[in-house]
Amino acid sequence: MPVNLTAPDSTSLLPVNGITLGVSEANIKIKNRKDLMVMQLVEGAHVSGVFTQNRFCAAPVTVCKTHLAEANGIRALVVNTGYANAGTGEAGYQHAVQSCEALASLLKLEPAQILPFSTGVILEPLPIDQLIAGLPATIESAAADGWRAAAEAIMTTDTIPKAASRQVIVDGKQVTITGMSKGSGMIHPNMATMLAYLATDAVISQTALDAMIQYAVNKSFNCITVDGDTSTNDSFIMMATNQAGNAEITEASNDYIALRDALVEVSIELAQAIVRDGEGATKFMTVQVESGQDEAECRQIAYAIARSPLVKTAFFASDPNLGRILAAIGYAGVDDLDVNNISLYLGDVLVSEGGGLASSYQETQGQVIMDAPEILVRVVLNRGQAQSTVWTCDFSDDYVKINADYRS
Amino acid sequence: MPVNLTAPDSTSLLPVNGITLGVSEANIKIKNRKDLMVMQLVEGAHVSGVFTQNRFCAAPVTVCKTHLAEANGIRALVVNTGYANAGTGEAGYQHAVQSCEALASLLKLEPAQILPFSTGVILEPLPIDQLIAGLPATIESAAADGWRAAAEAIMTTDTIPKAASRQVIVDGKQVTITGMSKGSGMIHPNMATMLAYLATDAVISQTALDAMIQYAVNKSFNCITVDGDTSTNDSFIMMATNQAGNAEITEASNDYIALRDALVEVSIELAQAIVRDGEGATKFMTVQVESGQDEAECRQIAYAIARSPLVKTAFFASDPNLGRILAAIGYAGVDDLDVNNISLYLGDVLVSEGGGLASSYQETQGQVIMDAPEILVRVVLNRGQAQSTVWTCDFSDDYVKINADYRS
Repeated sequence: MPVNLTAPDSTSLLPVNGITLGVSEANIKIKNRKDLMVMQLVEGAHVSGVFTQNRFCAAPVTVCKTHLAEANGIRALVVNTGYANAGTGEAGYQHAVQSCEALASLLKLEPAQILPFSTGVILEPLPIDQLIAGLPATIESAAADGWRAAAEAIMTTDTIPKAASRQVIVDGKQVTITGMSKGSGMIHPNMATMLAYLATDAVISQTALDAMIQYAVNKSFNCITVDGDTSTNDSFIMMATNQAGNAEITEASNDYIALRDALVEVSIELAQAIVRDGEGATKFMTVQVESGQDEAECRQIAYAIARSPLVKTAFFASDPNLGRILAAIGYAGVDDLDVNNISLYLGDVLVSEGGGLASSYQETQGQVIMDAPEILVRVVLNRGQAQSTVWTCDFSDDYVKINADYRS
Repeated sequence: MPVNLTAPDSTSLLPVNGITLGVSEANIKIKNRKDLMVMQLVEGAHVSGVFTQNRFCAAPVTVCKTHLAEANGIRALVVNTGYANAGTGEAGYQHAVQSCEALASLLKLEPAQILPFSTGVILEPLPIDQLIAGLPATIESAAADGWRAAAEAIMTTDTIPKAASRQVIVDGKQVTITGMSKGSGMIHPNMATMLAYLATDAVISQTALDAMIQYAVNKSFNCITVDGDTSTNDSFIMMATNQAGNAEITEASNDYIALRDALVEVSIELAQAIVRDGEGATKFMTVQVESGQDEAECRQIAYAIARSPLVKTAFFASDPNLGRILAAIGYAGVDDLDVNNISLYLGDVLVSEGGGLASSYQETQGQVIMDAPEILVRVVLNRGQAQSTVWTCDFSDDYVKINADYRS
């Protein structure tokens, strides 16, 4: 059961001028399930991407990077679920290339104008023939209002589709940002088994788009963890169709910040949605580490807490067994940390200070907060001005069930 | 159910001349359960210790380090379960000091000749009055053959006691090494919620003992992980009673290596026992990373695999979903790794090479190996001479149950 997350209704998802989306049931792994999606972009769109840092990066990620670097004008994205086409060697690379060639031929484009994406099981070959056979029907269904269907087609262990829209005024014009994402295991920054596609009709330079996407990822998808596993296939793609009629946004534009902040909002909503629908999640936790010497140490501590199986199982049990949080702070690897200066809050309640329980703390207070589906953990280091926030979910027996069963 | 691990019978545990062990039910947390243990050492024994690197180290760890540094001749150890006396601030420190004072007074020693240890829940106060009240009965039961009872008394979530003995000839004399350990959550090197006490009657210099214990820990307790959580209380203590009549062993002695290797053997058995009895464990995995540039990168990759929840749940399910191992190798943080040069073996079966599945691999082969209770994962990096081995267990729904229920 996702935590405070419902599927977006189709009417809340705003089309982005210059984008169509089509889906189909291509029988790539599971029958009677939408598993193939094609997004088409108007000519002249700008596209920017951020990809996994996993050394075993998937074949489609390699192809995406090459095609983006060639800068021939990206015109379509193709996404399959079921198989990740990762750990598939040279054959996998050829499959990714073939999927681009097949789609390019149908759309009368160059293969280098296509970006391919795969998500699913690693190490097993992508059934490329099924994928190619499914492309005509996928293109056939292309529609500007296809966002909701597309968000469904890219799901794997997700239980509900994830998508969101925002509108903002730039240069006097109303522009739209709509995006979708999928999780929901192998979620850890830099990045996760995570696909995200965001699009805007705003006119924006390639350079400004590149800067904006990096900023947005750092504020959103790089702040989440479900299980600490960084996947082979993570991709975050931002597209600008340049259709809104505004004066081109550069990094120097007055409206750069307005568009960027709207992008960050959508990105955070989509990133949090992945955690809310994390495998087996029953709780959504915000871990905020404050007043550190620098952001890096705050992140390090926040992630130590957010990925600790002991902390996560205690949250699952609604058990204010908060010593586990102290232990995680202590082993986070910040060597000169003076634990006697640290304050730990659960919501607004001061739990620990001076290296021990706060004298004011009552376990009943902790219990009330632990019983809620959304929990704020605040660690105040009292040694600087930096801060960092990480979002995560609890660790339930369902996580184990889902991941013990996933392949079979 | 522990994996291929049975409780040692009392007769297999050899007394160590110069050591007695007593236990009692002190009602520290749970009634009708042995929860207090005192080990007494003959005068002139040498003692050396290795402790957790967690910044929130427990109060007794702080006291142990101080008392060992003062070098007044350690004469007794006191160990309680139920409460870890960690995250307990100044009051916790005073409790640890008081436990030493009370035992010293009963045994007519100085408090600085006592080492205190606690294991259990973090952040809650140690019931020091119960502990002190339990000391006379604990001392009363002291016996040279008390190892088995002592190994039971230090258990927390362990399901069976862990202890082992070896004998070896040094300088023509037969000497004994006997030890015990406890787990079984918060297990990760440097070090774990782990207590281990080893003793020998060999005559050995303090310097040689210090060097030997560091070597043994690196080959044993620093090679295990259950859940990646490094606890606040880990302690590994080695005692030499100097009673065996051999010429004093120094690092230059011919027999230094013989004694060290026997110590390593016992240490590995006790460390592996913790993993075999890891919380919820159904499988025991050896992760061996070979032919790396240096030991550090081999360890880094071995630990990435060994702590991945996705890998561990796949092992629980006996599912040869081996792509998850490749993903863990890829995100281990070895930046210049060329994944096309890596070979992955499951037992003797080559699973992956050249970045994809090995052409010879059949899933039925993988399935046979995954079905066994003990599994060897071998990663060959093909870029150097170094290697590293890590032992871990799988991740089952019982792990979640145990840790969601542990405190209540």
